[in-house]
Amino acid sequence: MRPDAPQNADTVAGVGEFGLIRRVTQGRIQPPSTLLGPGDDAAVVAAPDGRVVATTDVLVEGVHFRLDWSTPEQVGRKAVAVNMADIAAMGATPTALLVGLGCPADTPATLVDELSAGMWQEAAVAGAGVVGGDMVTCETLVISITALGSLNGAAPVTRAGAQVGDVVAVCGRLGWAAAGLAVLGRGFRSPVAVVGAQRVPEPPYAAGPQAAAAGATAMVDVSDGLLADLGHIAVASGIGIDLRTDLLEVHPRLQDVASALGADPRHWVLTGGEDHALAATFPDPRGVPEGWRTIGTVRHGSGVTVDGIAYEKPAGWEHWR
Amino acid sequence: MRPDAPQNADTVAGVGEFGLIRRVTQGRIQPPSTLLGPGDDAAVVAAPDGRVVATTDVLVEGVHFRLDWSTPEQVGRKAVAVNMADIAAMGATPTALLVGLGCPADTPATLVDELSAGMWQEAAVAGAGVVGGDMVTCETLVISITALGSLNGAAPVTRAGAQVGDVVAVCGRLGWAAAGLAVLGRGFRSPVAVVGAQRVPEPPYAAGPQAAAAGATAMVDVSDGLLADLGHIAVASGIGIDLRTDLLEVHPRLQDVASALGADPRHWVLTGGEDHALAATFPDPRGVPEGWRTIGTVRHGSGVTVDGIAYEKPAGWEHWR
Repeated sequence: MRPDAPQNADTVAGVGEFGLIRRVTQGRIQPPSTLLGPGDDAAVVAAPDGRVVATTDVLVEGVHFRLDWSTPEQVGRKAVAVNMADIAAMGATPTALLVGLGCPADTPATLVDELSAGMWQEAAVAGAGVVGGDMVTCETLVISITALGSLNGAAPVTRAGAQVGDVVAVCGRLGWAAAGLAVLGRGFRSPVAVVGAQRVPEPPYAAGPQAAAAGATAMVDVSDGLLADLGHIAVASGIGIDLRTDLLEVHPRLQDVASALGADPRHWVLTGGEDHALAATFPDPRGVPEGWRTIGTVRHGSGVTVDGIAYEKPAGWEHWR
Repeated sequence: MRPDAPQNADTVAGVGEFGLIRRVTQGRIQPPSTLLGPGDDAAVVAAPDGRVVATTDVLVEGVHFRLDWSTPEQVGRKAVAVNMADIAAMGATPTALLVGLGCPADTPATLVDELSAGMWQEAAVAGAGVVGGDMVTCETLVISITALGSLNGAAPVTRAGAQVGDVVAVCGRLGWAAAGLAVLGRGFRSPVAVVGAQRVPEPPYAAGPQAAAAGATAMVDVSDGLLADLGHIAVASGIGIDLRTDLLEVHPRLQDVASALGADPRHWVLTGGEDHALAATFPDPRGVPEGWRTIGTVRHGSGVTVDGIAYEKPAGWEHWR
């Protein structure tokens, strides 16, 4: 806690750790998978097929979000969405979330309320519960979320199963969050569609288990950029991937934004992260499920090419690079 | 990343996120419960009885640990221990850990190596694997850990089951970490026994399932202090607890340290957190398992008393207070 931090009732210091925990958990309705919710040393969550899928993502103010660009509620939704997208990318359904929150002592308690409201809202989209967490003093606002999920008897869809001859398909938006970031970075607040996509991604959670059921051989969520994340599948599967420009739809809205900013919308589509679309490989073009768009094929070799050619610009986001 | 941060090969910025992930995961041996380890969108962990126990704790440099007091390896061990103690306190066995790490770009990569080595070392004590994580840029060094565990068919031991007439017992150290903190706070580095207890707690992990099997009605890990954590059982169970001074052993080593510092060793035992002993209630004094020490009884009423009297000093640690 900062020595000069106000101790008044409106700050996290004033409300205190236990008071805050009460505020963010009281009256919340848990899904049936929450066998024991918040308030004890640990939670107990159903794992009906004897396995649990688990993933962690950490979001830092100024790195992953800005409170002058997004409301706390939007940040809460995004923090949950990026984690649940990883669960979906295994072919699983999100069941539960644990939230670690670090914030300065003089943080308004309402900020925590709003963050929490956003988290519960996004959790509800996928039917998950917020089952536990921890709140601590930290000079930087940090949100660490762990998402759990259930495969419901299916095999996990890893990054390592893509086979030469498979088709590559995506479900969800590509390039929208990157377009929103470009807009916000220039000081604009509209168009709302792309700015909203940057603030709160809309991962197609149900498309994960859908792809698993349709026989997807490999799957990933597009968090670092399409080329970067398909590159992970290429490395893990020991194959190459070729994308076809004519199959990569650039939405007219993105075209408009790109024209206004003098940017290349295809670059957003190929390298923009944070939309958390799902990308997967399927053995049979006719087996690609409804709602998915075929964008390329799995080939011999390595790396990800576009129309057979290496893409030259930086392929995606890596921390500290 | 700080604009002026060095990009040399010895920092996390130089090694990069993916390089670091390789360094901390390569060559590690996972336990059988790790069905799919690090490297994919999410891990898959066995949950043999169809349930998973889950808990999160966040540790912040300067708040929960100091790198001038502890080595990175000790911090890694502690971060894992505090989480696995929560799993044990439900009566469960730790199976897996997910690690979120935020650190500045100019952090030496060897610090991450050593943190990670400590985490793996402590995980191995309980047979758990490190199955996933996330590494991000953050001005503050923050470690967020989620621990998963298995109840192996047993009912979880919550805080809410204590009954009037039960005995209260503890397993593990009390007051040692607080004594170590007092020593370190005055600029000393010895006695090693108490300083070591502050740096790396030694929770009695196996005592959790042992207590559950022995019919424990309520259990908690002593993270905030004995009075504070038994207070959580008292509130959740709607009972009161009375501790007996003559049963509360104060180890001669603590007596010595307290004499040297002019401190009250009983205060450390009653209010010192961070040792992560387990405290539980048992219906039958003869059913208290080996290795546990009876220290009091469950009574009608509320709150925690010592020899029938309210303890006057602050009862334990609460964030932002």
